[in-house]
Amino acid sequence: RPSRIDAIAFVQQGKKIVAIGRNYAEHIKELKNTVPSEPLIFLKPTTSYLPSGGNVEVPRGVTAHYEVELGVIIGKTGREISQADADSHIAGYALAVDMTARNMQDVVKKKGLPWSAVKGFDTFTPISTFIPKLAISDPHNLSLSLKVNGAVKQDGKTSDMIHRIPRILEFMSSIMTLEEGDLILTGTPSGVGPIVPGDKVECALADSTGKVLSTLN
Amino acid sequence: RPSRIDAIAFVQQGKKIVAIGRNYAEHIKELKNTVPSEPLIFLKPTTSYLPSGGNVEVPRGVTAHYEVELGVIIGKTGREISQADADSHIAGYALAVDMTARNMQDVVKKKGLPWSAVKGFDTFTPISTFIPKLAISDPHNLSLSLKVNGAVKQDGKTSDMIHRIPRILEFMSSIMTLEEGDLILTGTPSGVGPIVPGDKVECALADSTGKVLSTLN
Ligand SMILES: [Mg+2]
Ligand SMILES: [Mg+2]
Ligand SMILES: [Mg+2]
Repeated sequence: RPSRIDAIAFVQQGKKIVAIGRNYAEHIKELKNTVPSEPLIFLKPTTSYLPSGGNVEVPRGVTAHYEVELGVIIGKTGREISQADADSHIAGYALAVDMTARNMQDVVKKKGLPWSAVKGFDTFTPISTFIPKLAISDPHNLSLSLKVNGAVKQDGKTSDMIHRIPRILEFMSSIMTLEEGDLILTGTPSGVGPIVPGDKVECALADSTGKVLSTLN
Repeated sequence: RPSRIDAIAFVQQGKKIVAIGRNYAEHIKELKNTVPSEPLIFLKPTTSYLPSGGNVEVPRGVTAHYEVELGVIIGKTGREISQADADSHIAGYALAVDMTARNMQDVVKKKGLPWSAVKGFDTFTPISTFIPKLAISDPHNLSLSLKVNGAVKQDGKTSDMIHRIPRILEFMSSIMTLEEGDLILTGTPSGVGPIVPGDKVECALADSTGKVLSTLN
């Protein structure tokens, strides 16, 4: 049967957001992190979704960093998905920002505490509208960019992912069942940095010819 | 209006599980942890639910520890819930086990990595049926016990919680909106330890007179 997940359903009905960290080499270097021995995954609550056009709320005392990412939307529930089967579980894509309370993250990383709070504030997952799978011929040949107040801060290529989408789905679904409507975040390229209320943030996803497939602001 | 959340709906429809760690002093000591300066929270995926009677699956190489906990089920969505209002957001309770891949958790704590994988495997949240709010007159005057193969391993009192339920809801909802159907895990007393496939695990929740309110096995 065709997936029931469409342009808005995943934001309203999806139950989880599963993200991978440290999936672009240049971003690992900029945060002085080490390359993990296996994919590093974490959960964000769906209450953190912020549809395009909304304003990120930055809690007092928080340094909020943007991380532009390619999102993958699950169209068919699965557990222990093989890399060969991964594509059949994808309904489409979205452009997303994995907002992160970086100053709080620095503390929890030092103390060995969970990341859920630092990644999970309301409005911390700005999300574009749904991009149908057929609109993207090769998800590993896209450009991902983010501007703040008109200045380009992030300009990466999904061809630089360390773990590609089939491996990400295989790994995540070896731990937890992925359900129809779940969003998978595939990691951010380099250039992350802070925003403050009033900053104008513009993100774009484009194919290899420069054609814009989605925007988010 | 009355909450739509009932005996089975929260397991099937709830979107998230938000847990507090280190909420009983004796448990903090047994794992040689320090008392956190503010509540320590983390997410578990709802795909980890295992209704009573099911078998926990222990992945190869994993030391799976039980942690019996009182669960609180949210009946009314709220953000920045005050302690005074907390009770009005509660639909009921459940008896739960927060299964934890302890050997993996020891590694991620040392490396400053997220806890989502070590807490998030399928079947890692055994859960009782729904306990209506009216069945429990004082959630901070209950006993929580867990036996393995007939031997009592955990036997705690919810009166020993460091952060009580109104404070837990206040803290969590200051970060993320709590939605109808969400499960809140309130921490485990001391006595945690490993189980292996084939072990018989029996949990009970009782009031101060010894009357059993719920069981889970
Ligand atoms: Mg990220
Ligand atoms: Mg975490
Ligand atoms: Mg626990």
